[in-house]
Amino acid sequence: MKRAVVLLSGGLDSATVVAIARSQGYEVIALTVGYGQRHAAEISAARRVALANHIQDHRFIQVNLDAIGGSALTDDIDVPKSGETVGIPVTYVPARNTVMLSLALGLAEVTESEAIFVGVNSVDYSGYPDCRPEYIAAFQTLAQLATKVGVEGSSISILAPLIDLRKEEIIAEGLRLGVDYGITHSCYDPDGEGRACGQCDSCRIRLAAFERLGIPDPASYQP
Amino acid sequence: MKRAVVLLSGGLDSATVVAIARSQGYEVIALTVGYGQRHAAEISAARRVALANHIQDHRFIQVNLDAIGGSALTDDIDVPKSGETVGIPVTYVPARNTVMLSLALGLAEVTESEAIFVGVNSVDYSGYPDCRPEYIAAFQTLAQLATKVGVEGSSISILAPLIDLRKEEIIAEGLRLGVDYGITHSCYDPDGEGRACGQCDSCRIRLAAFERLGIPDPASYQP
Repeated sequence: MKRAVVLLSGGLDSATVVAIARSQGYEVIALTVGYGQRHAAEISAARRVALANHIQDHRFIQVNLDAIGGSALTDDIDVPKSGETVGIPVTYVPARNTVMLSLALGLAEVTESEAIFVGVNSVDYSGYPDCRPEYIAAFQTLAQLATKVGVEGSSISILAPLIDLRKEEIIAEGLRLGVDYGITHSCYDPDGEGRACGQCDSCRIRLAAFERLGIPDPASYQP
Repeated sequence: MKRAVVLLSGGLDSATVVAIARSQGYEVIALTVGYGQRHAAEISAARRVALANHIQDHRFIQVNLDAIGGSALTDDIDVPKSGETVGIPVTYVPARNTVMLSLALGLAEVTESEAIFVGVNSVDYSGYPDCRPEYIAAFQTLAQLATKVGVEGSSISILAPLIDLRKEEIIAEGLRLGVDYGITHSCYDPDGEGRACGQCDSCRIRLAAFERLGIPDPASYQP
């Protein structure tokens, strides 16, 4: 059976990517990277998604990106809730996707996986340099040169099946594949019980997409 | 003053790279990445090298690469001491350089550094895919696409000044720049007091280079 490493944050996008990888016949090895987030809600969600998908091999890697600083997601910068962003958002974590893909690459190499799936999206995250198709293409080139399998002539494919999809298209595809979005977590600023704020960029994008589809978002929101 | 992030492991190579970066007029920000090594001798050495170079900003990032597995440096595989290696050595840590360069890239972006210095070497580590010039070039391309500064048209240079040097050339350059190799640590398998084994590949390469230069290695070896 062909095997793939899937980067699993526990968010809506990565839960959809797990379903897509499975639908394409891959045995999924899930990799959740904790990067000094201010909350554990994402990791709990990742665990729920892995369980719901009967994933046997779920790895956790911690890396304290807060030692680098520079983001509202790792520092004490306020997460914006006005819905207005100009340029690269303060929630952009420097090098996050490069670090996560690097870790996935190492795991793919060790587990002899043929592919890495990542839920990056250039539509809703157009301000993030490392969510663009040309970035993924550059990582593919790097992966070829960085690995044993690459040197030996075969390769590990970097697959970003959501990259050109709008959020409602992602959700529609996930629903078609049976994803339970009630167990996923997207919020940048959840409360102590892990409930979403409903106001940060990530919540706004998600809620608007469900609204456009005319179905309620099954996630838990703060009252 | 121009600024650079230098990946500092505390080994002979990275200590030399710090001296080269300083000699080129860079203010050095040191980044030491602990990746689940079996010993702390490297981190102590990194601290000594940073102190000796009066580095004001020394960051430490921990990442448990042992969750990936697949290397004698992170797993319970014996470090080879026979001096014989065929193909890619068991001390190759999958994706290590990609992970470390990614972290350096994030730090360089946040600190507005112009360059990243890394002590990779393709002569003594010819079996490691991620020590080759074409790998560094691919990472340079990725860095351009992955960062804010890259998107805005400027760039962070990935500099690997040791890449084509033999070990004795590295040491000769370091001595010319005043590097104290007595405080560096290269061994894959030190004892409890941090003394080098003298028999692993890394020790063999280092000792042979000092011998060819006709000077004693000032590091501490097990009796």
